[in-house]
Order: sequence, then C-alpha cells, then structure tokens
Amino acid sequence: MAFSHQVFKKIETIVGKANCSADREERLCYSYDTTPEAVYPDAVVFPRNADDVSSVLKLANQYQFAVTPRGAGTGMTGGSLPVKGGVVLVMTRLNRIIDIDVDNLIAVVEPGVITGDLHRAVAQKGLFYPPDPSSSDFCTLGGNAAECAGGPKAVKYGVTRDYVLGLEVVLPTGEIIRTGVQTAKGVVGYDVTRLMVGSEGTLGVITRLTLRLLPKPDLVKTATAVFDQMETAAEAVSEIIRQGIVPRAIEYMDNASIRCAENYIHAGLPVDAEAILIIEVDGSAGETEHSMQRIEAVCRASGACEFKSAATSQETEGLWKARKAVSPALFAYGPDKINEDIVVPRSRIPDMVKKIKALSRQTGLTMVSFGHAGDGNIHFNIMLDKRLPEQLQKAHQAIDEIFDYTLSVGGTISGEHGVGTSKSSYMTKEISPEFLALMRRIKSAFDPAGILNPGKMLM
Amino acid sequence: MAFSHQVFKKIETIVGKANCSADREERLCYSYDTTPEAVYPDAVVFPRNADDVSSVLKLANQYQFAVTPRGAGTGMTGGSLPVKGGVVLVMTRLNRIIDIDVDNLIAVVEPGVITGDLHRAVAQKGLFYPPDPSSSDFCTLGGNAAECAGGPKAVKYGVTRDYVLGLEVVLPTGEIIRTGVQTAKGVVGYDVTRLMVGSEGTLGVITRLTLRLLPKPDLVKTATAVFDQMETAAEAVSEIIRQGIVPRAIEYMDNASIRCAENYIHAGLPVDAEAILIIEVDGSAGETEHSMQRIEAVCRASGACEFKSAATSQETEGLWKARKAVSPALFAYGPDKINEDIVVPRSRIPDMVKKIKALSRQTGLTMVSFGHAGDGNIHFNIMLDKRLPEQLQKAHQAIDEIFDYTLSVGGTISGEHGVGTSKSSYMTKEISPEFLALMRRIKSAFDPAGILNPGKMLM
Repeated sequence: MAFSHQVFKKIETIVGKANCSADREERLCYSYDTTPEAVYPDAVVFPRNADDVSSVLKLANQYQFAVTPRGAGTGMTGGSLPVKGGVVLVMTRLNRIIDIDVDNLIAVVEPGVITGDLHRAVAQKGLFYPPDPSSSDFCTLGGNAAECAGGPKAVKYGVTRDYVLGLEVVLPTGEIIRTGVQTAKGVVGYDVTRLMVGSEGTLGVITRLTLRLLPKPDLVKTATAVFDQMETAAEAVSEIIRQGIVPRAIEYMDNASIRCAENYIHAGLPVDAEAILIIEVDGSAGETEHSMQRIEAVCRASGACEFKSAATSQETEGLWKARKAVSPALFAYGPDKINEDIVVPRSRIPDMVKKIKALSRQTGLTMVSFGHAGDGNIHFNIMLDKRLPEQLQKAHQAIDEIFDYTLSVGGTISGEHGVGTSKSSYMTKEISPEFLALMRRIKSAFDPAGILNPGKMLM
Repeated sequence: MAFSHQVFKKIETIVGKANCSADREERLCYSYDTTPEAVYPDAVVFPRNADDVSSVLKLANQYQFAVTPRGAGTGMTGGSLPVKGGVVLVMTRLNRIIDIDVDNLIAVVEPGVITGDLHRAVAQKGLFYPPDPSSSDFCTLGGNAAECAGGPKAVKYGVTRDYVLGLEVVLPTGEIIRTGVQTAKGVVGYDVTRLMVGSEGTLGVITRLTLRLLPKPDLVKTATAVFDQMETAAEAVSEIIRQGIVPRAIEYMDNASIRCAENYIHAGLPVDAEAILIIEVDGSAGETEHSMQRIEAVCRASGACEFKSAATSQETEGLWKARKAVSPALFAYGPDKINEDIVVPRSRIPDMVKKIKALSRQTGLTMVSFGHAGDGNIHFNIMLDKRLPEQLQKAHQAIDEIFDYTLSVGGTISGEHGVGTSKSSYMTKEISPEFLALMRRIKSAFDPAGILNPGKMLM
C-alpha cells in the first residue's frame, strides 16, 4: 500500500483544500478510537457527499492505498483505526437529518448525524429511535450501523440492525448503490443492507441511511433494585424474563462499577451495594405501572434489599448518566483496562458472574462487570498495569478462559462492540475456518483490491 | 447442466433408495409451487441431515447439475421451481422442533417444520412466534427464511428476518457452516445469517434455524371495521398509524375479496361492503382495551359504517380463516390470476387504491386487492383468461404501470413473496445495474459453479 504527495494533491483537487489535510495535528486527531492503540493515517479527508467518497475510493484502487471510514471514533475495538495508513475518511460533515416522516415512521439521515441528536429530533415529533449506545451523545449513526451498535434498550427493541431499512453505500470500487427499502417490508434482491450493518466499514462506505422509527411510548418508568449479592441480582434478571415481562432495559452494575460511576457523576448510587439493577419499562400508563409492580415483586422475592422508582425525570437522567459513565470512569482503578463484550444466554448470567468472580480471585486482578443483563450482554473489564508483564499475561489467560466459557454455554464473544483489531485474533474461537474463508470471498466480491479498511475483522 | 442415470445411482448410494426417486410421479409432485408454471426435475432427493445435503451439493459441483432446495412449495414467485432440471432437495423430512428454550426465548428447529406447528408448540409454553404467512398451516420455516416471509403481524412484530438469530447452512460448495448466534445480540463476523434470509435458496441450503421467540401477549382482541368506500378505509389505516397506535395487524379486503372469501369459507363477512379492515391489537388487558377504543374512534371518524369486535375466539379464528382464504378463493373470478405483492409507504395507500381502481376501469379487467394495509403491503391480483392475448397484454401493461407508480412513491415491488422466476424480469426496475452486478459477485463468492437454484432472482 502506497501513499504519496502526488496522491494527496489529487485528493485535494477532488474535495478541495478545505476538506482534506496531511498535517500532523489533523492526522493525530484521527489516529485513535477508544482502544489504547493509535495509528497515524497519511491524510485525512472530510467528504462532502457520496461523489467525494466515490472519487477517493476509485483513486485508492488506482494507486493502491488504504481507506478507513470513520465517524466520531467512539468505537471500542479499533474498527476505525487506519492500521495500514492511507486515508481516513471522516464522515462527520455529512451530518444532516434529511427527513423525519411522521406518517411513515422513517428518518432519512446522513452518516455523521450524532445518535443523540436524532433521539431528540424524533422525540420532538412524538417518535422514538431505540438504539442507544452509551456514547450516544458523541457517536454517529453511520458508525452505529457499521458496528451494529446496541445499548440498553435492545432487550425489548433490538439493535441497530433492526432499524436500518435501507442505505446509500459507496462500494470499495467506487459505485454508489442504494440498498433496501423505505418501507417496513421488502425482499427484492440480496439483503446487502444487513450485510453492510456490522461489517465495520470493510464492505462499503455508508453515505445515507433510512431508519425505522417507532411511536414514542406513552410512559417510561425507571427503578433501581439493590442487591447484597451479585448472584441474586443475576437470578432476578433471569426470573423477570422467565415470567414473560419485557422491560425495555435491565442494566446491572457490580460494586466496583457503582463506586466508580458515583465518584465520577454523584448520582446518589448506593456505593455499598454488591450490585444494582436499573430497570426501565415503557408502554401505556396502566401497563407500565403493572409491569413495574411485577418486577418489584420478582426482585424482592429474589432477595433485593431495596427497590426504588425514580420519582422525577431528573432522577432517571441521573441514573442513566451514571450507568453510561461507567466505562470511562473505570480508569480510576488502574492505568489500563481490557474491555470485553460477551453475551451469554440470559439464563447463564448467574453462572458467568460466578465465573468472573472466581477468575478475579485466582488472578488477583480487579475485574469489573456491568452491562445489559436483560439480553445477557456483559461488559467485563480487567483493570491492570500493562507495563507489568505478569499482570498482562494473567489478564490474557483470564480473557481466554472467559471466551471459552462464553462459547461453551452458547454465547458470543462480542455483542455490540465489534471485532475490529482488538478481537480479530479471537474471532476463530467462535467462527469456523469455512466461515472465515467465506467471509474472505465476500470481502473480495466487494473489494477485490483490498483497499477498504484493511486489517480489520479478517486481518 | 447435465444429469445422468450414473449421477442418480451415486445419489442413491449417498441417501439410500428410500430417500430419493427419479420416478415420473415423484418428479411431478415436486415440479410446481403456487405459480402456474411447472418444471420437472430429473430427480427428487429427501435429505436426512446436513451431511446428505453436503454430499449432493459436492456431487453437483463435480457433475455440473442444478440443485433446487424446496420446503412445502407454497411460494408465490417460483423460487422452488427446478427450472434447470437436476435435483430437487425436498427438506420436509428434516422436521424436528429440536428445542424450545423458555428461559432464553429461543427455538431451534429443522427447516421442514411447518410454521403453524411451531406457533402451536411455542404457544403451549406461553411463547409467541410472530411471522405468520397465510400459508402457515402448510409452509415450512426453512421456506419462510429463504423467502423472508412476512404476514399480517409484521406491522408490529416485523418479518422472518427479525426472528432468525442463527443458521446451520450447507454452502453450495458443500461446506457446512454455522452463522449467527443463539443470543439477542452478536456481531462477530459478517451477517451471513440475514444475507441467507430472503436469498431464495440461491446462496445455501438451510438445515437448522435458531429462532427468536417472544412471551405470548396477555390478550389479543380482533375487530372488523366496515367501509362503503375503499379510499376511506385506506385513510383510516393511515390515521391509526399517524396517531401512534401500533396494532399487531391491520388487514384490508376489498369488495371482491370479501365476496370470494365469504363464498369459500362462510365466516359471516359483510358481502355488500366496499371494504373491510380486520384490526388486531395485543398486550396487557388494559392496554388492549384502550387501543381498540382509540382505533374504533379513528375508524368511525374516517367514515366506517360499522365497527365490531369479535366476541369469541371462534369468531376471531373465522375472520382469519376468511382472510387467509382470499388468495386461493380468487380463482372464482377467472381461470387465471396474476398476483403481485407491492409495498408503498403507508401514507400512500389511499393513492394506490385510487390508482388500482382507475387501471381496472381503463383495462376492463377485474382487479382484486387485499393485504397488510398496516405496513403498506398490498396484494393485488389481476383476474384474466390467459388464452386471450388482448387480456394478457392489458394485464402486463397494468402491472408495469403499478410497479412504476409503486417505485415512484418510494415503495418496493415485492414485500414478502420474493422475486423467484415471476418477478426477475421486473427486478431491474427497482435495483440498479451496479447493485445487480454486486449480487452476481456475491452469488459467485458462494456458488462459483452456479449449481444452486439457478435461474432465480439473478436469472
């Protein structure tokens, strides 16, 4: 892969001087995501439209340089790192909400729109866009689609995949195509829409999205259940689901997460609790009330020592702020963390919690876990100092063990963070050589020259 | 493509004499679906497991014969017709429900399980599998996945795609792979699961499915609204959605459909009505009641001359039987019908209804429409005698016009029936040459020899 001053000049001609840069400062700004690694690109390009993207990709095929698309860089697994240099395509200037269609419950947006901005814009029209990653105030909808972002509301409402109806995509070879539909149903042609979702920008660059919206629920109620054992909290989660109740979120935080978040945000969390669940239900007023009563009964029967409904919307917001702050706040426990994103069948959450506890005892490393208990999606973090080889080795062993255990109970090693660079070496634990070979053939069908986001997922 | 007695002997060795046949009678039985065409395969094979499928596919690559997988043959667009001869793989002997996991809300099934059998089996455990094509008492889950079947409940619950979490698939080259997950979330590797769904058996043969289930709603209520104009019925549908109510089904039938179905089933439908809506809501008892009251108010305000809730479960079943009988019952109007499956944005249903009426007047042909109004999915049928060239020509012109109009308002030419053989010549109205070229490259990545279900979708 080669990038030269001559190529940069050609890019400048395409997008204009104001929309590209080879300055060290700009390159630094787009060299990292939330993983510890950073890799400088050779140049940074801010496309103004799909044609710009197409022209840059055609050039990349001609001159054989890597192109890595990127939203806000909030990814957790290195999906937007320009590991082979070349160009980073920063999609954030394509940030218009083009249409919110109240009659047909769709939104048409550009990929650089901040997820939270869409949440607020549709709410003003009485509508609701459920996918809600913790980074929703910063991350972009294009990035969400590329990684198939999830978040807490997936337990009832599903993930980004379930809300992308159609796309405008620039293929790695430069063609601009439209996939999918603007309607609820549609089966004409292969489902390239969902193939794009979660492909981490390795198969195409998304330049427009048609998203499905829902009517805003009449009422949302949020409560906290406090437990003096992590295991009983986990059992309460299983029991809620077993009883056929579908909250829109069941989040859990262990003691270490609670302390960290409280320190960072001061939301009034019970810092002595071994675990809390944040449970949210929505629907009509009567239904919401009824569900919350049933949930309280389950939690108390499972051993919750406290159950408290948020009295005001400020209190609810505070809870969510605290929950969403856990990941960045964890650095209080050590200079480094290794962050994993496993999913187990919901009924296996108690077992997984025990497994993590045992591993923490065994290795002497602090392990913090929190996440979307309602869909079995556990974010567990190993806190360490990577300069200490012994800690690093133990951490990697622990991850290996957790992954093997996860897969042995029917889970997956990534629920919503993706594979990117940080999990690609583990991917073959979950998928077979035949599946990987098929993925490579798909990649070649889209990107014969291998110029788009190389070094990700497939390595 | 070549098939010989020698090849048949090899197949016999693989699957055993009891599981294959080259007899004319058997070949006839698997020569057709619900389209008027019929094409004899050279042989019929009933695989016992994925290994049988794999062996037959490897043989097909070696000897270059076509293989067409098939469930119950209830498809509407020729997806399972063996248009290039060779082998029909009849998947109906793989018909075990392997697991219904109440704690984790999943079912693991073989592709030959009848959809209605799964409905009943999960209902007995308090669970719910929403996809519900009209042929649910006959069609198979494998076929549903291959075509991405929908049905009436899609308006609230989505289509088959939204319920397939993972698959076991035999690739055209014979490798047996597992795709997807058994959990609510999962983003490891490309989304081959959803790429398979709706690919009409052209990319692989499904041998096992992991399906997402939901808790069964507490209560379901069904009502009929009667209108003396089709347009006002269509406007009522738009208004229900606009008000943020989400029924689980809003079906409509025009006068011709009502008469036909009533004649066939005797469910007590109002045969003089210009149109009826069958509206179904579900949820908690209070919510269901409340939603139905709001829907009644909307219907009456829009001009419904009658609104009647089904009093007993027998009455509800009768309504659905009638609705599901429309398609076969239509032959009362003429020896032939051309059946289409368009989707328009919900707000455009009234316009589409006018368009169909105008075309019927213009051509003098009987046009019957009914379908899933809640998601804009209209099944419209042109009744004719195909032996009369003038009628046939007018019908094709009318279809051309309807498709063009559908696409001009942002719709799609197939919501749930697929492309198969009967719509493949229209497909390029909707998708671009660049998209079609990409589909061909994807097909080659899966099936380099082009042996699996050739002549479908891509032609």
